[in-house]
Amino acid sequence: MPAASVSSGEPIRVAVIGYGYWGPNLVRNFSGLDGCAVTAVCDLDAEVLEAVARRYPSVRTTDDATALLRGDDIDAVAIATPVSTHHRLARQVIESGRHVLIEKPMTSTAEEARDLIAMAEAAGVVLMVDHTFLYTGAVRKIRELLDSGEVGTPFYFDSERISLGLLQQDINVIWDLAPHDLSILQYLFDESPESLQAVGYRHVGSGREEMATLNLHYPGGLHAQVRVSWLSPVKVRRTLLGGSRRMIVYDDVEPSEKIRVYDKGVALDLDGEEVTPLKPIYRAGDVHIPTLDRTEALQVEAAHFLECIRDGVRPLTGGPEGLAVVEWLEAADRSLAAGGTFVSLES
Amino acid sequence: MPAASVSSGEPIRVAVIGYGYWGPNLVRNFSGLDGCAVTAVCDLDAEVLEAVARRYPSVRTTDDATALLRGDDIDAVAIATPVSTHHRLARQVIESGRHVLIEKPMTSTAEEARDLIAMAEAAGVVLMVDHTFLYTGAVRKIRELLDSGEVGTPFYFDSERISLGLLQQDINVIWDLAPHDLSILQYLFDESPESLQAVGYRHVGSGREEMATLNLHYPGGLHAQVRVSWLSPVKVRRTLLGGSRRMIVYDDVEPSEKIRVYDKGVALDLDGEEVTPLKPIYRAGDVHIPTLDRTEALQVEAAHFLECIRDGVRPLTGGPEGLAVVEWLEAADRSLAAGGTFVSLES
Amino acid sequence: MPAASVSSGEPIRVAVIGYGYWGPNLVRNFSGLDGCAVTAVCDLDAEVLEAVARRYPSVRTTDDATALLRGDDIDAVAIATPVSTHHRLARQVIESGRHVLIEKPMTSTAEEARDLIAMAEAAGVVLMVDHTFLYTGAVRKIRELLDSGEVGTPFYFDSERISLGLLQQDINVIWDLAPHDLSILQYLFDESPESLQAVGYRHVGSGREEMATLNLHYPGGLHAQVRVSWLSPVKVRRTLLGGSRRMIVYDDVEPSEKIRVYDKGVALDLDGEEVTPLKPIYRAGDVHIPTLDRTEALQVEAAHFLECIRDGVRPLTGGPEGLAVVEWLEAADRSLAAGGTFVSLES
Amino acid sequence: MPAASVSSGEPIRVAVIGYGYWGPNLVRNFSGLDGCAVTAVCDLDAEVLEAVARRYPSVRTTDDATALLRGDDIDAVAIATPVSTHHRLARQVIESGRHVLIEKPMTSTAEEARDLIAMAEAAGVVLMVDHTFLYTGAVRKIRELLDSGEVGTPFYFDSERISLGLLQQDINVIWDLAPHDLSILQYLFDESPESLQAVGYRHVGSGREEMATLNLHYPGGLHAQVRVSWLSPVKVRRTLLGGSRRMIVYDDVEPSEKIRVYDKGVALDLDGEEVTPLKPIYRAGDVHIPTLDRTEALQVEAAHFLECIRDGVRPLTGGPEGLAVVEWLEAADRSLAAGGTFVSLES
Repeated sequence: MPAASVSSGEPIRVAVIGYGYWGPNLVRNFSGLDGCAVTAVCDLDAEVLEAVARRYPSVRTTDDATALLRGDDIDAVAIATPVSTHHRLARQVIESGRHVLIEKPMTSTAEEARDLIAMAEAAGVVLMVDHTFLYTGAVRKIRELLDSGEVGTPFYFDSERISLGLLQQDINVIWDLAPHDLSILQYLFDESPESLQAVGYRHVGSGREEMATLNLHYPGGLHAQVRVSWLSPVKVRRTLLGGSRRMIVYDDVEPSEKIRVYDKGVALDLDGEEVTPLKPIYRAGDVHIPTLDRTEALQVEAAHFLECIRDGVRPLTGGPEGLAVVEWLEAADRSLAAGGTFVSLES
Repeated sequence: MPAASVSSGEPIRVAVIGYGYWGPNLVRNFSGLDGCAVTAVCDLDAEVLEAVARRYPSVRTTDDATALLRGDDIDAVAIATPVSTHHRLARQVIESGRHVLIEKPMTSTAEEARDLIAMAEAAGVVLMVDHTFLYTGAVRKIRELLDSGEVGTPFYFDSERISLGLLQQDINVIWDLAPHDLSILQYLFDESPESLQAVGYRHVGSGREEMATLNLHYPGGLHAQVRVSWLSPVKVRRTLLGGSRRMIVYDDVEPSEKIRVYDKGVALDLDGEEVTPLKPIYRAGDVHIPTLDRTEALQVEAAHFLECIRDGVRPLTGGPEGLAVVEWLEAADRSLAAGGTFVSLES
Repeated sequence: MPAASVSSGEPIRVAVIGYGYWGPNLVRNFSGLDGCAVTAVCDLDAEVLEAVARRYPSVRTTDDATALLRGDDIDAVAIATPVSTHHRLARQVIESGRHVLIEKPMTSTAEEARDLIAMAEAAGVVLMVDHTFLYTGAVRKIRELLDSGEVGTPFYFDSERISLGLLQQDINVIWDLAPHDLSILQYLFDESPESLQAVGYRHVGSGREEMATLNLHYPGGLHAQVRVSWLSPVKVRRTLLGGSRRMIVYDDVEPSEKIRVYDKGVALDLDGEEVTPLKPIYRAGDVHIPTLDRTEALQVEAAHFLECIRDGVRPLTGGPEGLAVVEWLEAADRSLAAGGTFVSLES
Repeated sequence: MPAASVSSGEPIRVAVIGYGYWGPNLVRNFSGLDGCAVTAVCDLDAEVLEAVARRYPSVRTTDDATALLRGDDIDAVAIATPVSTHHRLARQVIESGRHVLIEKPMTSTAEEARDLIAMAEAAGVVLMVDHTFLYTGAVRKIRELLDSGEVGTPFYFDSERISLGLLQQDINVIWDLAPHDLSILQYLFDESPESLQAVGYRHVGSGREEMATLNLHYPGGLHAQVRVSWLSPVKVRRTLLGGSRRMIVYDDVEPSEKIRVYDKGVALDLDGEEVTPLKPIYRAGDVHIPTLDRTEALQVEAAHFLECIRDGVRPLTGGPEGLAVVEWLEAADRSLAAGGTFVSLES
């Protein structure tokens, strides 16, 4: 089946499968873009579909994905359903010759992800994964600071993503929250981690880990820690990135000042000063809070998806990037099962 | 040699060995207490001794601990020197029949700690370890909230103690900073951890871990995480304690509102409500910030030390408590050496 | 023309005039309510109307308010246009027999406000003013704390509402921002201020005050200060309310913990303690952060407007309340013109 | 009597009168400086003197200022007593030929201040006023930012200095807290305010204003607001300084990041952009947090006092600066008495 060809004059017609937490954001953002129209929405819940119909009277609604894809009013499909259904639904979409955008994490297993990559390549359609954070001004600014050499050699990446709820029933907290941090890691650093370790805990009785810590080791000495929890009384979304020249605090809960760059460093050979236990060898410098592009990330991402479809651009967050994150998530589950030992990430 | 007998009418005469970072606080606090006099200070640095002499003209100063102990003007000695010297100096103090207060961590090895415990028992002198945080209003309030049942079953203890510097040369960051959290753990919970895991990292080239994470597992399901770092651009001293009924945030950087009690919980069977992924089963309640006793912790501790000497009270932070912390620190080093595997804490 | 009679079975049909900053919120909230339909939108900007048509295809759009009101598909009209047009438009709406909701401040002059009150009474239609803050969980909680006697005698109300921009061209910063605080004052306290003083400043050259401070004096000793600014680098929305028994901090920038109740007080006769300059006579107690109803204020308000129409309930924020705020704003202008002297508010 | 002549080789001998809240800081800081010795302390409280004697055995203590000055062991005197006694004591000190440092505010009346200035000039002694904040790294950095032109034309200075207690008995809250802000104003700007207005309130029954707001107008358009209170549940020490090019937030409660420089501005002619009510004409730029000299302010000030004595340097905070602050305080009292009208500051 040939890939949906989209001539540049016509709007790209997008369907959304899954109208739960994230689906409305997808519909709103794709609706708002020039050169794009949301034409159909699929969800299993009749009440949800009614609400969609009321709000977007011109949008076709259905509770049957197969029926959805039978329509000839669709060029691309965004999937925002539970992870366990991603592979099956994305296969259907690709088989029908449409481009596909899949919510994170891409699939339940790396094997499924590899299958989708191969299918999309064969079908000549765009396969993109919804790693939303890479489209924020904050994460792009961090990448910029790394690229410019300002940060120096990166020492560590330390991320905390904790709050109360929402408890997912089909996946543990790592699969729910860590994809954000893992996709950021995957984007920021050119090298890949070589091993990973995870510890996780269950308290409420959900049968799935509700709190967890991941440690990722990189060949060059960089290491990353990612902490995720559904059981914290306070909401924290904070990443520290320490480098040899500067250190960055990325606080996503801050409404406007999300990135702080500390001109601070620690060294043993700093200016030849004498090192003694009571004479800390650190450099306390200024702090800089850069302005950030505040465009909604999903809007930037949706526009990028359309650009990939129209101009054949390779997605920033395509199949391989989605696969990497799923591989790390699988490794985390293996480490959990093995009682928290480090597991290798060599493919 | 008989233990120093102190009649209740006379002031207890205290000597301090080590006048670096902590020593001045010891001198200031013991000086300020009724029924107590600081009579001698020992430090290797001549300039430091001169400063002491200027500030406290009546205090005998010396750079020789043996000479210090030869004087008959001492009932008790506080040791605030590098960890590696604690055992040797405390032995001398106990052998001379004086009571001893040792800065945390108690010793470099559990064996040394056991040796001191045995010696102090034989000599009939008070052996106390300077686990300062247990004497703060904040930590005592947390213990109170646990004891009263308000918190419910404790789920987790999560502590972060990070800042820039000060780099210690003789110990790694775990031995430097984690004793605070480990002593708090030891105090708050009646059960003991059964296993422990540590990962640590070196970046600056000090040859010692500068950042580390400890995970402690308790038999009943409680778990604790302690993160320590000398390489953070921001100073954080924050502990989360999650229980089945309430959750506590203890932020030691806050000048006055250090403890926040969240009347929040998460449960699967809450009020029989239906559990769905989009319907988080959490209870969002009020937050309560209790007033705390703001007496300087070291003052409370110093008074307790005097009380132990005078009234034969068993120290809240005696030899066994100091030993437990050292055992956990040793286990952390073993886990680090083994690449981050869990090691057993069963004695 | 008779007042729109609305039978309880049919939805109330709402039109919105003005689709700038606030209009979209009105449309969204009225659309979302049961028993209500947004049927028409009026704005002068053709592009804006196109966007409305795309988003709400069933909504009639027009750039002519007279034409809007000619339709028989309207029971009530919400006006969200510049203040100078409120009186003229509201007159038209009332004359056409429709109920009306007017954005704050109600009108440009107290005379205009009195005119609308008289007209609405004669026409038997609901006249309501959009004092949104009175429908927030935070402000209702403060009222509750005052009513229950928990706060004791209120001493002062101190509000700061400052940020960078947005510069209004037709009104000064007092008319733009202070209506929020003045309506809150009007709601919280049973007595009315007897005099008012204002100082204001212009820097950018807009020809209107860009920063100002209001002081309101109440007969019983209560006083209120309201500070507003378009020229602050930081956004602050903070109200302190001090009472003889408790003090409240209302921080509207806080995402969730907007209200903090301090169990603190100051007294000269506190427990008969001796008063000396160095012995402050204050009581430092716990802080309590109550949970608040987090329903969007405009949704509560829209529902209340419908309730007033359907059940003949007197609006919480009706004509008299709107008039009071406009009277105080006029007094502020008089004080500004008189160089900051106190002006009487006696009617 | 000739002024105390101090040869550069000998230490300057300082006496301190008043050992209440501030006196101990004076003794500690003068003691810590090279080329200086604290030789005598005077206080009316026998217990206080005993404590001084225990802590500083070499310091002469007395409860009689006249006796204190009779000693030949004094070159300079620091006065830290209630304001009402400043003039009488400072006269005695100057008459005895000693240099004098007076706590803020300098005196109870401008007339008293002028008298001291004349006396000190005649006697050839250094007269300095303890405007401590001008010796902080933060305030000096603000001055630097103003001098360099970075801030542009200063628009406003807005300061809030509020907390719970301490209630002073002999002066109102303006005389207690506002001298800090007024001295900062006096230091930062070259021009002087031309008029001033004050409103104040009493609630607790102390007979003195416990909360107040001052507005100061400058001939060039600059204006300053200073708010002080003993009745706030929260401690705030925050100054906003808005200029045409940059805006500064000075938060003195922040432990380390006290100064934030916002590269934000508002203008009507910015880049020729069209001005509309919904298109705010502001520039949102980066924020910069400069490192500050963190030396204790009183130490810098004490050193400066010694430098003035030894090298004949004119004090940064001498008699004229102290007088200016007292004149403004007197004007504030006049405005309070007149019901909050603006009063002229022209001498």
